[in-house]
Amino acid sequence: MNGRGEFITFEGTEGVGKSTQLANAARTLKGLGVDFIVTREPGGTPMAEAIRELLLSPRDEPVNETTELLLMFAARAQHLYNRILPALDQGKWVLCDRFTDATFAYQGGGRGVPVERIALLETLVQGEIRPDHVVLLDAPVETGMARARKRGELDRFEQEDLEFFQRIRDVYLERAMALPSRYHVINAALPLEDVSESVARVLTGLVRAAGSS
Amino acid sequence: MNGRGEFITFEGTEGVGKSTQLANAARTLKGLGVDFIVTREPGGTPMAEAIRELLLSPRDEPVNETTELLLMFAARAQHLYNRILPALDQGKWVLCDRFTDATFAYQGGGRGVPVERIALLETLVQGEIRPDHVVLLDAPVETGMARARKRGELDRFEQEDLEFFQRIRDVYLERAMALPSRYHVINAALPLEDVSESVARVLTGLVRAAGSS
Ligand SMILES: Nc1ncnc2c1ncn2[C@@H]1O[C@H](COP(=O)(O)OP(=O)(O)O)[C@@H](O)[C@H]1O
Ligand SMILES: Nc1ncnc2c1ncn2[C@@H]1O[C@H](COP(=O)(O)OP(=O)(O)O)[C@@H](O)[C@H]1O
Ligand SMILES: [Mg+2]
Ligand SMILES: [Mg+2]
Repeated sequence: MNGRGEFITFEGTEGVGKSTQLANAARTLKGLGVDFIVTREPGGTPMAEAIRELLLSPRDEPVNETTELLLMFAARAQHLYNRILPALDQGKWVLCDRFTDATFAYQGGGRGVPVERIALLETLVQGEIRPDHVVLLDAPVETGMARARKRGELDRFEQEDLEFFQRIRDVYLERAMALPSRYHVINAALPLEDVSESVARVLTGLVRAAGSS
Repeated sequence: MNGRGEFITFEGTEGVGKSTQLANAARTLKGLGVDFIVTREPGGTPMAEAIRELLLSPRDEPVNETTELLLMFAARAQHLYNRILPALDQGKWVLCDRFTDATFAYQGGGRGVPVERIALLETLVQGEIRPDHVVLLDAPVETGMARARKRGELDRFEQEDLEFFQRIRDVYLERAMALPSRYHVINAALPLEDVSESVARVLTGLVRAAGSS
């Protein structure tokens, strides 16, 4: 446990419970004495948060698809090299609300950006770096949207229609099936206590595995 | 002259006279009855100008080299597809203060970003689109810096040292030599009237050529 930290991301469509479960995972790690940071994408450093603002605020000017994609990866480069990697190098675990899987899901599945363009930027920015583990909170799109709507105003992404989010869910599930060792798919349609218990169990397992390696 | 407009960019190190000569070129086109727009990079649309702000304002957080590169191209995608190409399609000429040559010169030559990374993003964003003509204002780095300093406060780029700008000048000249049909290299160390006369002559030649094609 005094080696490199684990890089764990939380993914899923709007309102499935990413932020809620990230807080839950943080409690679990704290209880187990693991040193960690909590962060989010796009964002995580002052400059990356400024890029997030640009991306999420609704605007009159139509946002070009490539512009959106490049801004996402610009924020990611800043976040990865200025915050995530330094933390991992210090042995801290990193819990991150969304990462590149979200780009494949939202820009790829949602907006129809060819997957090769995204993969090309992933390599350009990240080289070989990928999350060690992805907690994928999966629920029917309507379930998450209903929760998100209760939460308040919708941002530029949340204003899209259900089919948009259906395509996003599909991409997440495809990616999880293609690499089951990295992805932990959790049924997020269940009551909060059940989801929280599943997430805590996953995190506890990862801490044990890291301790014995 | 009622076909597609010509896309003309103005390049060179700080203070060589790009903005001055762009205004001069605009007067020339106006005198010849050519319909045109004047724009600049990074920027040219409200969203791209917001990205410009992010790029140019001095900040405490070190800006990752890849972040800078991606922000440049994010602004460029927005500018190209929302403003430059629509204008060209309407038969307007486009006079642009800096474009992708500046990325090769500043990020490539100045910051040492591998040229392949820049070329890869150029293709991702622009496909086959390149400026039809580049007016390269060339002068010793000290000459331009002295002019820029007189102009007022320095931005994040202008605070770099002379060697940084020397590498930039070198890249500009190499690119011009590699493709002399596109680049019009002008000695910008000469007195203003002489530089203006050279630029007016280049523009007049381009208008004649477009009219007779
Ligand atoms: N399993 C659950 N059952 C019911 N409501 C939930 C559940 N998980 C989260 N919520 C609620 O749904 C809303 C969205 O959760 P949130 O964690 O913000 O989702 P996300 O970050 O994925 O958009 C919040 O109000 C949260 O309290
Ligand atoms: N040929 C020239 N000789 C002397 N001063 C010049 C010349 N061209 C421009 N200037 C002055 O130098 C300063 C920088 O010019 P500017 O057009 O703003 O350069 P750039 O846009 O390339 O940074 C301005 O104050 C301008 O009036
Ligand atoms: Mg959230
Ligand atoms: Mg200028």
